[in-house]
Amino acid sequence: MQFLNENFLLSNKTAQTLYHSYAKDMPIIDYHCHIDPKDIWEDRSFENLAQLWLGGDHYKWRIMRANGVPEEYITGDAPEREKFQKFAEALARCIGNPMYHWCHLELKNYFGYEGVLNGETAQEVWDLTCKKLKEEGLTARSFVLNSNVEMIGTTDDPTSELDYHRMLAHSDFPVKVRPSFRPDQALNLHKPTFRAYIESLSKAAHFEITTAKDVAKALTDTADFFHRNGCRAADHGLDYVFYRVGTEEEIEAAFQSAMAGEEVSLEAREKYQTYLLLHCARQYHRLGWVMQLHFSCMRNPNTKAFATLGADTGFDCVAMTDSCFALRSVLDALQSEEKLPKTILYSLNAADNSWIVSLMGAFQGEGVRGKIQHGSAWWFNDTKAGMEAQMINLANMGILGNFVGMLTDSRSLLSYARHEYFRRILCNLIGTWVENGEYPADMEALGALVQDISYRNAKEYFGFQ
Amino acid sequence: MQFLNENFLLSNKTAQTLYHSYAKDMPIIDYHCHIDPKDIWEDRSFENLAQLWLGGDHYKWRIMRANGVPEEYITGDAPEREKFQKFAEALARCIGNPMYHWCHLELKNYFGYEGVLNGETAQEVWDLTCKKLKEEGLTARSFVLNSNVEMIGTTDDPTSELDYHRMLAHSDFPVKVRPSFRPDQALNLHKPTFRAYIESLSKAAHFEITTAKDVAKALTDTADFFHRNGCRAADHGLDYVFYRVGTEEEIEAAFQSAMAGEEVSLEAREKYQTYLLLHCARQYHRLGWVMQLHFSCMRNPNTKAFATLGADTGFDCVAMTDSCFALRSVLDALQSEEKLPKTILYSLNAADNSWIVSLMGAFQGEGVRGKIQHGSAWWFNDTKAGMEAQMINLANMGILGNFVGMLTDSRSLLSYARHEYFRRILCNLIGTWVENGEYPADMEALGALVQDISYRNAKEYFGFQ
Amino acid sequence: MQFLNENFLLSNKTAQTLYHSYAKDMPIIDYHCHIDPKDIWEDRSFENLAQLWLGGDHYKWRIMRANGVPEEYITGDAPEREKFQKFAEALARCIGNPMYHWCHLELKNYFGYEGVLNGETAQEVWDLTCKKLKEEGLTARSFVLNSNVEMIGTTDDPTSELDYHRMLAHSDFPVKVRPSFRPDQALNLHKPTFRAYIESLSKAAHFEITTAKDVAKALTDTADFFHRNGCRAADHGLDYVFYRVGTEEEIEAAFQSAMAGEEVSLEAREKYQTYLLLHCARQYHRLGWVMQLHFSCMRNPNTKAFATLGADTGFDCVAMTDSCFALRSVLDALQSEEKLPKTILYSLNAADNSWIVSLMGAFQGEGVRGKIQHGSAWWFNDTKAGMEAQMINLANMGILGNFVGMLTDSRSLLSYARHEYFRRILCNLIGTWVENGEYPADMEALGALVQDISYRNAKEYFGFQ
Repeated sequence: MQFLNENFLLSNKTAQTLYHSYAKDMPIIDYHCHIDPKDIWEDRSFENLAQLWLGGDHYKWRIMRANGVPEEYITGDAPEREKFQKFAEALARCIGNPMYHWCHLELKNYFGYEGVLNGETAQEVWDLTCKKLKEEGLTARSFVLNSNVEMIGTTDDPTSELDYHRMLAHSDFPVKVRPSFRPDQALNLHKPTFRAYIESLSKAAHFEITTAKDVAKALTDTADFFHRNGCRAADHGLDYVFYRVGTEEEIEAAFQSAMAGEEVSLEAREKYQTYLLLHCARQYHRLGWVMQLHFSCMRNPNTKAFATLGADTGFDCVAMTDSCFALRSVLDALQSEEKLPKTILYSLNAADNSWIVSLMGAFQGEGVRGKIQHGSAWWFNDTKAGMEAQMINLANMGILGNFVGMLTDSRSLLSYARHEYFRRILCNLIGTWVENGEYPADMEALGALVQDISYRNAKEYFGFQ
Repeated sequence: MQFLNENFLLSNKTAQTLYHSYAKDMPIIDYHCHIDPKDIWEDRSFENLAQLWLGGDHYKWRIMRANGVPEEYITGDAPEREKFQKFAEALARCIGNPMYHWCHLELKNYFGYEGVLNGETAQEVWDLTCKKLKEEGLTARSFVLNSNVEMIGTTDDPTSELDYHRMLAHSDFPVKVRPSFRPDQALNLHKPTFRAYIESLSKAAHFEITTAKDVAKALTDTADFFHRNGCRAADHGLDYVFYRVGTEEEIEAAFQSAMAGEEVSLEAREKYQTYLLLHCARQYHRLGWVMQLHFSCMRNPNTKAFATLGADTGFDCVAMTDSCFALRSVLDALQSEEKLPKTILYSLNAADNSWIVSLMGAFQGEGVRGKIQHGSAWWFNDTKAGMEAQMINLANMGILGNFVGMLTDSRSLLSYARHEYFRRILCNLIGTWVENGEYPADMEALGALVQDISYRNAKEYFGFQ
Repeated sequence: MQFLNENFLLSNKTAQTLYHSYAKDMPIIDYHCHIDPKDIWEDRSFENLAQLWLGGDHYKWRIMRANGVPEEYITGDAPEREKFQKFAEALARCIGNPMYHWCHLELKNYFGYEGVLNGETAQEVWDLTCKKLKEEGLTARSFVLNSNVEMIGTTDDPTSELDYHRMLAHSDFPVKVRPSFRPDQALNLHKPTFRAYIESLSKAAHFEITTAKDVAKALTDTADFFHRNGCRAADHGLDYVFYRVGTEEEIEAAFQSAMAGEEVSLEAREKYQTYLLLHCARQYHRLGWVMQLHFSCMRNPNTKAFATLGADTGFDCVAMTDSCFALRSVLDALQSEEKLPKTILYSLNAADNSWIVSLMGAFQGEGVRGKIQHGSAWWFNDTKAGMEAQMINLANMGILGNFVGMLTDSRSLLSYARHEYFRRILCNLIGTWVENGEYPADMEALGALVQDISYRNAKEYFGFQ
């Protein structure tokens, strides 16, 4: 089979029919991404692929670093064309890396380029894409509109005024751009920026925060504000899952120490964090939101790089963490009060997949198909092998048909190609099972299942009208 | 390939020949299950599939819960027909779940139904199965007899009088129904039922138990009683593997505290448990039994569900545990005294598979092929992917040809279909290797190997005459 | 496909072309093995396969033990022909074990035997191989020379005088035989042999070692000596990765206690070990060496076997260890001083693979393609499934094209067949991707990639001229 032809990743007839006749044309609900709503509101334009691809994509930066490229060409001041050259040379060595597929899908879908990108073709690709970016009006909004996107879920701090979301909601832009509530900074009382953050949160909440209880109240208020502006989901980036119940006094003391700039013990910190996590979850339950928990992540492992480049620059990695029993305790505490919200669980370590799916089976809820979900293969696992492993595990231990499916989790406006990638892999997995005789070849039922996972389940689950 | 035809899961000629000419007709040694021997003795009958399938099968309950079905239709008082409807609707979404295969295999094998079960066909399936259950005498014994079962290993508490086993042994029922010794309750001194249990054990052992040593003696005596009644296997459900050696005084103190209703520390508890586990293992060695150890299991994670529904109702799940070095210590302690029995190791967490198989390679014994075994993919892993992973890992690091193979671990009388499922997957795995040129196509040798794993290894290993 | 024909493991045309036209004839850089250079210098000869295969190969011993073979036939005094018989009988049950493939590849490549080895053919194989060993001059050197080996990296203690390496370097033997520096004994201050070892190290370093600092200095000096004799790599066998920074006084106290024969706490030991590991790494960085770290290994789990047979006799196994955050700290500490050497990471537990590859992505370095590497599937993972899993994981999260590829890690002179095994699996993996349309079918680029991974990357990475 030729590289990247119309049946890319579809190894059999059933898979091809499922993709082309059922999955392909479903709208996209991208319920969790990191796109800046300002870019959409302002309809940002780009001069070249370096700006579009290499400006903030830490996946691509990692590949360049793994190829020995000097930092000057990655996050530094080298000319854009040279940066692109280095990237193209590295990419050519990346057989088996999803970046290879994503880049070629994006070149094909958005620029009509059907060749292969490598060191030799970099100039040709550069010229073509520069020309098209200029001449065909390929701006932020056009990428979204050309991708059949129905809804975008951005990731937002509780202090956000949501100006761009509100302006977009009141404009004629036909795609829903909705915020997600991510209160990590309010929980991270060990970060040097904590005090300054609490000040911002005070402003956003319109009252002075002086206690841990005030923090909780500010999060309640800002969540309500988010809700009024269309938010239906929250997200917590936890590194590892903790569960340590403290007394009111202990929690308050931890907060006061942090505000006084004193050292806070790990135990005291976890008591404060557990208190707020449970508090937030109760609000999500009250508001009918979906809670997303991301964990098993090691942040900023390279001290030197962190000092010079800061966070989220391509150094974070997969961690082995003891999250299993703590996550059970979090879910159980909420379930015991009947305040467990709909929840999506994501671990960066695929070795956690099997206990996650079995654990979530113990906390499902009446009246919701798949109340607790295993999130689509996250970040480093967002590969063909990783997605297949996630779906096979979910199918084996739970109900694949209830899966809310793909999200991009991306900072890039071109990443909708990853929904295509996911759908092809989904259709191929199911098509292969069917052609092996492992499931009846009832195309109507299979088509509906594939459409549910590609689109309808997410729409229903999040409750976007 | 059509769904569930005669070559179901057999993707090539070699696999088909291995299954149909060698594996299919081997008798079944179901050495570990949870069938109630009373049901067999009384030749229990069933009116409908709800009674047969949904009465006690927590696998099916989980699927219904994951589909948002209210508990009323699961463990509650809803009419049987409606429960079955809810199950059929959930099952239709379960592509990739082994339950989908097991149910359809059971409908085909025991009821001759070759269609697909879903919400629309539920009535037709209900009617057909009700009719056959009534008219064709499909009772407990018939399911066993129609399945070519040679031996059933039930799971029994040391306090059991084994009445049904003895009556069956002295009847003309041609299938061996043998007890397995499962002394978990004697080890779990932290459970609220411990004192009452020790009282029952006293009665069963015919002397008053007042010390930890007495518990050990009672287990020796009851094991001897089990042995006289045909028992050749024991089983421990451990959650995680512990190894903490205590002094006689410490062990005794732990026991006395528990009997006095006092709190016992985790350390004290583990000392008591380690003492008894080693004591039991020595008896198994003396009696020539097989010891089964099950671990990496999280029991009753959902407090609310446990309070209302009790244990074993579909909430238990996979755990990440630190069992690796403790298990080594258990095996090593027994090996050092030359009292290590034949042992089968099962972890609920497949991430443990590789260390288990390598560890067992360090404790094999002279004169027994595969003295220490890696148990067949357990519970949540009892899937096509899980069984293949278990067998590939075992083949890679040990000797697949010595594997004692499948067991149902089931409460259901229809579960013998899982032996068929296993054999098809085994034959497909080996057939695929052979057709890829990875192993010589010597059908006689391959057929013998497949028969060994399907039947002869277990028979020889457990020593059932 | 016939067993072991020329397209063994090559399931498609692209794979076959890649192997036969590109990979097959690349020289072998076996950068990490356990061959005794004395055997090469003395051109050791062998009378039979028992001597050649069963003399020191703990992989084969494990298989025999798993088949219940008495120790007498494994490491004991049974006649060689009988040992071989027991091995052949066990091997015949080992479908899916790489040993099955390695043995048959070795019989085919070195002895021209194309049949199947089992209990029945053992005599025929014995006779043929005895005859060829005698008549065709199949000695140590001939095995190396017939295998297109360019470089052999042995594993050597810092106390080694490297006599054989030097004699070989000054002889006309055309293959580079280079030492690797493995200072485990200097770090293991808890071993009973530590004091005696420090004495040997004093002699090798030509000064009396009386402090921990002296140990460091002795390792610096011996590393320099190794460097002058062509060494370009070091290796640490760590069981688990530790990182515990101590003060000078604490480190010195730990050393003095150990030298006085006193008990040293785990914490004190780890402080001493961390100090020396970082010290060594700085030397490797200074010398431009490659540092290899091996971990997640449980040594000598069977106390009884260790007491009678000693270390490295086939009892070691895979461990679950908490190495993730400690390894990050080791790499980060070195990176912070800009003294992180090129490093290859190997875990015996494949469950570690994903965090390893993501972690190494955070420490890559400018000017080196793949400065930090994930080592080829190690030991128990050195199987088709294990190698595929390692390469897919590396490809997904890093750059497969920069992989330094295979090593034998073997004590046997026939193990070069494992490079063939690896290359076939590599070509099959890539060929399959290409034929599935997942990568362009540019045979020139693919051929170069396969040659890089088979040979050129290792040559460039280690800097062997």
